[in-house]
Amino acid sequence: MPAPEQSKAPALADVTRGRILFGGDYNPEQWPEETWPEDVRLMKDAGVNSVTLGVFSWAKLEPRPGERDFGWLDRLMDLMHDNGIGVVLATPTSSPPPWLGRLHPETLPRDEDGRTEWWGGRQHFSHSSAAYRSWAAAITEDLAARYADHPALTLWHINNEYCTYDWGDEAAARFRDWLRERYGSLDVLNSAWGTAFWSQGYGDWAEALPPRHAHYLKNPTQVLDFKRFTSDMLLECYVAERDIVRRHTPHIPVTTNFMPLWAGQDAWRWAGEEDVVSADLYPDPRDPFGAQHAALVQDMTRSQARGPWMLMEQAAGPVNWRGVNHPKPRGLNRLWSLQAVARGADAVCYFQWRQSRQGAEKFHSGMVSHAGEEGRTFQEVKRLGAELAAIGSAVTDSHLTADIAVLHDWHSWWAGAHEGRLSTRVDYTDVLTSWHRALWRSHLTTDFAHPEHDLSPYKLVVVPQLYALTDTAIDNLFSYVRDGGTLVCGFLTGVADQDDRVRPGGMDPRLRELFGIHTLHEWWPLDEGEWAETDRFRGTLWSEEIEAAGGVTAEATYNGGELDGLPAVLRNGCAWYVSTLPEPDALRALLARIAADAGARPVLDGLPDQVEAVRRGDLLFLLHHGRESVTVKLPGTHHDLLTGAAVADELTLGRYGVAVLRS
Amino acid sequence: MPAPEQSKAPALADVTRGRILFGGDYNPEQWPEETWPEDVRLMKDAGVNSVTLGVFSWAKLEPRPGERDFGWLDRLMDLMHDNGIGVVLATPTSSPPPWLGRLHPETLPRDEDGRTEWWGGRQHFSHSSAAYRSWAAAITEDLAARYADHPALTLWHINNEYCTYDWGDEAAARFRDWLRERYGSLDVLNSAWGTAFWSQGYGDWAEALPPRHAHYLKNPTQVLDFKRFTSDMLLECYVAERDIVRRHTPHIPVTTNFMPLWAGQDAWRWAGEEDVVSADLYPDPRDPFGAQHAALVQDMTRSQARGPWMLMEQAAGPVNWRGVNHPKPRGLNRLWSLQAVARGADAVCYFQWRQSRQGAEKFHSGMVSHAGEEGRTFQEVKRLGAELAAIGSAVTDSHLTADIAVLHDWHSWWAGAHEGRLSTRVDYTDVLTSWHRALWRSHLTTDFAHPEHDLSPYKLVVVPQLYALTDTAIDNLFSYVRDGGTLVCGFLTGVADQDDRVRPGGMDPRLRELFGIHTLHEWWPLDEGEWAETDRFRGTLWSEEIEAAGGVTAEATYNGGELDGLPAVLRNGCAWYVSTLPEPDALRALLARIAADAGARPVLDGLPDQVEAVRRGDLLFLLHHGRESVTVKLPGTHHDLLTGAAVADELTLGRYGVAVLRS
Amino acid sequence: MPAPEQSKAPALADVTRGRILFGGDYNPEQWPEETWPEDVRLMKDAGVNSVTLGVFSWAKLEPRPGERDFGWLDRLMDLMHDNGIGVVLATPTSSPPPWLGRLHPETLPRDEDGRTEWWGGRQHFSHSSAAYRSWAAAITEDLAARYADHPALTLWHINNEYCTYDWGDEAAARFRDWLRERYGSLDVLNSAWGTAFWSQGYGDWAEALPPRHAHYLKNPTQVLDFKRFTSDMLLECYVAERDIVRRHTPHIPVTTNFMPLWAGQDAWRWAGEEDVVSADLYPDPRDPFGAQHAALVQDMTRSQARGPWMLMEQAAGPVNWRGVNHPKPRGLNRLWSLQAVARGADAVCYFQWRQSRQGAEKFHSGMVSHAGEEGRTFQEVKRLGAELAAIGSAVTDSHLTADIAVLHDWHSWWAGAHEGRLSTRVDYTDVLTSWHRALWRSHLTTDFAHPEHDLSPYKLVVVPQLYALTDTAIDNLFSYVRDGGTLVCGFLTGVADQDDRVRPGGMDPRLRELFGIHTLHEWWPLDEGEWAETDRFRGTLWSEEIEAAGGVTAEATYNGGELDGLPAVLRNGCAWYVSTLPEPDALRALLARIAADAGARPVLDGLPDQVEAVRRGDLLFLLHHGRESVTVKLPGTHHDLLTGAAVADELTLGRYGVAVLRS
Repeated sequence: MPAPEQSKAPALADVTRGRILFGGDYNPEQWPEETWPEDVRLMKDAGVNSVTLGVFSWAKLEPRPGERDFGWLDRLMDLMHDNGIGVVLATPTSSPPPWLGRLHPETLPRDEDGRTEWWGGRQHFSHSSAAYRSWAAAITEDLAARYADHPALTLWHINNEYCTYDWGDEAAARFRDWLRERYGSLDVLNSAWGTAFWSQGYGDWAEALPPRHAHYLKNPTQVLDFKRFTSDMLLECYVAERDIVRRHTPHIPVTTNFMPLWAGQDAWRWAGEEDVVSADLYPDPRDPFGAQHAALVQDMTRSQARGPWMLMEQAAGPVNWRGVNHPKPRGLNRLWSLQAVARGADAVCYFQWRQSRQGAEKFHSGMVSHAGEEGRTFQEVKRLGAELAAIGSAVTDSHLTADIAVLHDWHSWWAGAHEGRLSTRVDYTDVLTSWHRALWRSHLTTDFAHPEHDLSPYKLVVVPQLYALTDTAIDNLFSYVRDGGTLVCGFLTGVADQDDRVRPGGMDPRLRELFGIHTLHEWWPLDEGEWAETDRFRGTLWSEEIEAAGGVTAEATYNGGELDGLPAVLRNGCAWYVSTLPEPDALRALLARIAADAGARPVLDGLPDQVEAVRRGDLLFLLHHGRESVTVKLPGTHHDLLTGAAVADELTLGRYGVAVLRS
Repeated sequence: MPAPEQSKAPALADVTRGRILFGGDYNPEQWPEETWPEDVRLMKDAGVNSVTLGVFSWAKLEPRPGERDFGWLDRLMDLMHDNGIGVVLATPTSSPPPWLGRLHPETLPRDEDGRTEWWGGRQHFSHSSAAYRSWAAAITEDLAARYADHPALTLWHINNEYCTYDWGDEAAARFRDWLRERYGSLDVLNSAWGTAFWSQGYGDWAEALPPRHAHYLKNPTQVLDFKRFTSDMLLECYVAERDIVRRHTPHIPVTTNFMPLWAGQDAWRWAGEEDVVSADLYPDPRDPFGAQHAALVQDMTRSQARGPWMLMEQAAGPVNWRGVNHPKPRGLNRLWSLQAVARGADAVCYFQWRQSRQGAEKFHSGMVSHAGEEGRTFQEVKRLGAELAAIGSAVTDSHLTADIAVLHDWHSWWAGAHEGRLSTRVDYTDVLTSWHRALWRSHLTTDFAHPEHDLSPYKLVVVPQLYALTDTAIDNLFSYVRDGGTLVCGFLTGVADQDDRVRPGGMDPRLRELFGIHTLHEWWPLDEGEWAETDRFRGTLWSEEIEAAGGVTAEATYNGGELDGLPAVLRNGCAWYVSTLPEPDALRALLARIAADAGARPVLDGLPDQVEAVRRGDLLFLLHHGRESVTVKLPGTHHDLLTGAAVADELTLGRYGVAVLRS
Repeated sequence: MPAPEQSKAPALADVTRGRILFGGDYNPEQWPEETWPEDVRLMKDAGVNSVTLGVFSWAKLEPRPGERDFGWLDRLMDLMHDNGIGVVLATPTSSPPPWLGRLHPETLPRDEDGRTEWWGGRQHFSHSSAAYRSWAAAITEDLAARYADHPALTLWHINNEYCTYDWGDEAAARFRDWLRERYGSLDVLNSAWGTAFWSQGYGDWAEALPPRHAHYLKNPTQVLDFKRFTSDMLLECYVAERDIVRRHTPHIPVTTNFMPLWAGQDAWRWAGEEDVVSADLYPDPRDPFGAQHAALVQDMTRSQARGPWMLMEQAAGPVNWRGVNHPKPRGLNRLWSLQAVARGADAVCYFQWRQSRQGAEKFHSGMVSHAGEEGRTFQEVKRLGAELAAIGSAVTDSHLTADIAVLHDWHSWWAGAHEGRLSTRVDYTDVLTSWHRALWRSHLTTDFAHPEHDLSPYKLVVVPQLYALTDTAIDNLFSYVRDGGTLVCGFLTGVADQDDRVRPGGMDPRLRELFGIHTLHEWWPLDEGEWAETDRFRGTLWSEEIEAAGGVTAEATYNGGELDGLPAVLRNGCAWYVSTLPEPDALRALLARIAADAGARPVLDGLPDQVEAVRRGDLLFLLHHGRESVTVKLPGTHHDLLTGAAVADELTLGRYGVAVLRS
């Protein structure tokens, strides 16, 4: 079959067509078929217009090797279509049936201790297994062929939450291929890995291994490359399936769902291989900064998508994988769903439609909980469905703009996480979250960007921590500042190159020059409960013994202790360096000041602390994260799309209240 | 040899014959034979009338495969008999000799990670190993044949503390047999395990495995069935040996010793296979509720025995398996021993007679400690022996009666413990203990019962938590209340069926009807340190968002927070539902009130807090768990069997004081 | 080649020749060769006179099996010699190249769970592997042959920080050989291991195994013997390489570097096989008792060396293996280096010269840090080098004398650490440290000694805890007291014999007689946060229920609780027994009093708390561990070798100040 001619790549807008997608994973194969009409009735009642089918259906579709049972799925696809509900169709390759592990034990991953991951849970497949890939391709091929022309099909969902590692023998062979591809020669590998240290010189490719259990600290670059390799192998799995479905349906977009800020995938690279970027998002209802965590993931996903994105999974109530799993209080599901829309989502979907009665996730909530139609959960879902329908045409396919970019890079994260670092208290995602939180609390809208991206659209570039930076990235930062941009960097930035080789002086010399650091004498990590006092604030987690270059301003100075009198925050023109983690209020004030100097403005002035404001397209979203009513000053007249009411000069938001305003 | 005719099943009374059994595990093979006469002298001095021989003697009896060395045991049996001491003779199959593991490596268990359990400790046998079972049967056969007619033999003790798991290949094969037996067809298994979830459909029996290490949450019903299987396999091991010794000695009763409230055995089922029910009991001397823990185990063991039972092991002083192992303060060994008698024990035995000088338990106490005859420990043992002798004829073979039954079931415990539950803070034994403690502190005597037992003898049935209930059990509870019984249930009861399938509405509809629950909207587990306030008390651990049916009384109502105004305790006639765990004093008051309404009375009114009172037969035991003297009001005149003194109207008990009174 | 005639064994003095060795591990193979001249320039600037080459150079020297590449090392040796820097040449056998593990997988150790230790870290060799030993011998042979006559060679450094365990099959075979050698017959082994307990009788040598993962507590003597075996196997590896280099260079001394107070090696025995005793030392800069920890290790190393010793490794700044790794504040490196010299070191060396840019330890400091020549770290190193040069001729090869011996024995430590002990809170090194700290804080100089050493040189012998003692050791203590010595012992001393067999009465009868203990009724371990009050002090960790013999003095008596009125500290003439761990100030006062009674005097009277005083040869070292200036009264006139100044009657020491005085 000749490849069909391809015009424009399909996109999320082809799926939404002016409606916010609303729905979720639908696993009716877990229920008697008599339940299906009841499901459809409730879906229509709730305004569901999209369901995801088939995520974990491999054993159902292929109950024995090579057999096919599509009948039940045919009926479901027809049923959905007949009721005007679009289908996100998943390849079922995330969890192979038991027969695959039995037939091909080598498809089961091994961990670094050599333990096998058996079937009985999920995702027990090795990304490196030729057998797995071959069986996965076969079922994907047949699935795509069968439903290519089905009118219910709107979007392909490849696999699910790619997240597996493998230290086994087949993975080792693939790792060697990957290394050979990356380095070309063993000399280059030996240099990159620094194998002169601890007698690790490789004389034969066959000696290279995944970083398995070792007596003491492992080679950091071997570990780093293994993470790169893992992301790449998973991506190969994705691409292989994507290419199959794309061949059958070039007009149907393809996605796979990311886990929120998950360490295992370089999502910048992955996003480039998707038509639609989608993510799962499960903030803890008890986390006082759950909304900010959500905003961070939403900002990052939107930045990866470079526009509207899809919230593929969230929970209508509790999850079941925390120690204690709390339900969502009344109104929170609505609030957080609308927050996602505010931050660029054109789809609000759940895991899952109907809460399971059996299996490992039967205490994970669904849109229809165990309590059923009368349960509070479904009643709230229903209300939300109506509201999303009301605002859909006004919001879909519209964009956000941000003056600020926060830089993030998986490779730097991976490199910085080595077990042999100076402080295990320094956790990259904690630092990233702290900085994003400071900006979020200042009502500043932020994108995320890769350190090699074009930064010129931004007035301010924020680097919470980028331990490892390529030369290109350093050039990029340098040019950005040279061309008038404002840059603020946190500690442990620019320490290493892409091979995790420490740069001369412990921090790249050009960066030191940029910030006015003459000598970085010593890093002074801080203990739990330890503070570094400055004349402006208290620092936590880290401090540094820095000798500033002449003429460079210390914007804050350490006070007392071994670092007394040394600079804590350096400013060299528009380049700022923050050598500690200021306490939350101090970091907020510092970044707000730098942003203001750079000309980056909050969405609204004078907002109450618990109210989040986001502009998307021509709409202003106000999201109240508190339980007590607040009043927001809002000059001029607006129209609230949710209530239909006019809003003049001020607006009162009740518990978890939301307004979607057009001026 | 034709099987001897069997009349009545032998029982504990055949062993006690009016004396409380007093003694313990005797391991003289660890000592030079010259020590034996000294042991006998001290045993007689202490009133020891029963010793357990041979518990870990396999390597001694069979030093090399197939060899036999019974000489030393012959001499011991004779020595005991010559000195009037009965022998509880153990089959030595709990710890195979090193040669078995070397000859048959497949007898060594594998854990879920694939690790082998090697010899060098104890209990390194797979319950599923045909080789193990065959060698165990052979030594049991010869042991039984040799001592069948020995006059010292009073009781058979099979193996010791059965407690091993195995995830290995032979266990997998046996597990498949067990599943085939249970389910008949794969369709039934797939339905019971809910394998439609996460693509776990089994197409061939050979695919079924023990729940080995997995990538993420395991299938809950697979895990549940594996626990059932483990209990059943261990029981098969027990039954096989029991049948051998019973064939040789139909008149000698058989037991195996349970560990206190241990998760691995369905002791209701096991007890039915024993002539004598025996248990080991090791409360922590530092546990302020050690006595209540003991009472719980004693009540449960007595309920399993349906009458007198045997305390097979306790410690005269410290054990050596806690982090910090405290000795028993002066008097505590006596107090806790007499408590066991009060609650139905007709045997007070120890691990072990003489404290070991070598091996892994040399810091576990013995009746004769390292300090020897002059040591405080032995001196206290000696005093206790005399007292037990004094009360033996009055107490043995007499029964307790209780108006209250606490329901307990292993299968429900197993099902409720799945890793994917809503709160890992909910621990079944903690909840069970909290409820039993509330009753114990109210001086209410309780039996334990299985949820399918006949409950009609009881005025009150208490269900601390039965997450999974069969239809039969639910019918049983329903009938019990319909027939006038009072029932009080704690949260997370009736959630699932026997396959761990969540019942409609999140709780069985008949139970909801019984308690007057219209809708169970959401479970609200509580964090560590979090409270749910009500108008009556503070709840801990759990709370629920319940909508009561019309006309049903809320006996307590949540106050503040998300559940404000919703019922915390529901009463529907004689059926009570408690949706949280009230703080200890509140739970005590609540249960005392419900018990009083139901007509269940404390043993004595007006008892001081630290005094426990138990009626056994026509005797009243008073046990003082405090260190300061207290006075107990006791109308009428009693006779104290321990002191011989008459007691009129009141009695003063000193530190750890005990009185055994006849009125 | 005939072995050269050997006169006197070579010693450290042959290397130092009046200079304190100053330098460290030098790994220039990690840097481009252009860096070497710069290294030499900085070394000379800093007064470096000794570097260690080749510690982890195996893969560099033998990049493929059997190949040799000595060229780079030739150049280095020449370079060092040309610049007057001596070379400590290491055999590179600590970390085999990847090819060895690939060629001989059996050289990779297995842990007790069966996990392989793979290459990718370091020290992934099995001490028991014949293949490893053979390849290690070959490269050692060639290395020794090549550099035997090189004028730069001053000292052989065998391997590095021997510290590996192996539970695998080849180790099992060697363990069986070792056991056969130790016990001769299985009967003796069965008796020593107490295998009558838990059916562990061995009927064939082939059944004996390393103590692998077991179901429950392992056999304590099997575990103990496995530790002995491990120390012995590692020693065999050392001796094999030592004998090779000694054959080539009988005039060059040999050492291997111990880790500080490491559990795995019986260093008393090892020291006897070395010409020079060397140790690594890494106190935590944040530990308020880091200096005392250092003093302990220094005292112990000096005692093993019976004279001057070598500080082989320390850190100029932070290490990278703690959770949080702090740099050394200004002056601390100097202070702790001079402390080592005060306590007998004739060499002050570092890991490593130049901080790595790559590999697992790139955040471990070097003498030249990432900050380079201008960095504070190197500037302080340089100052120290000059000072060491100034005092070298006055101090090297001089000795310390001590009136007090603290007894320490690895076998006792190993035996006492069994998992089945009464309190896991009792940690041998903590107890040892507490007692040494009390003496150190009293300014009392102490040696360490083995319990079988000649103790007659000492006025006071201190036994913090020796759980297991041989008969010979007990005789030794007994004779020591009989001959007029003063002995003070802490709890858990003399409990077991060399096979970990509990001695009669729970403590050796002769020891009980010595201290006046009639009966040791029970041990009473104390919980975290629990105290045992006495009339003199508060005890922690442990207490005992002791009945004293008639006429023996209780120097402290328990007060309240179960032990009320019983002796806490017993004195019987010059023999003291301390049955608890007194709080730090109380232990200090108690030991100071006993020492004074015994005639052991502090180095100086009236010293401020933070000032440490040590006499070495005719020099008095004063070391101030505080940050605020203090004044020390010092009758008479002294000359400070560091400043050249005269000191009359008193001396003021600033932050971390040091004086090296001659009177």
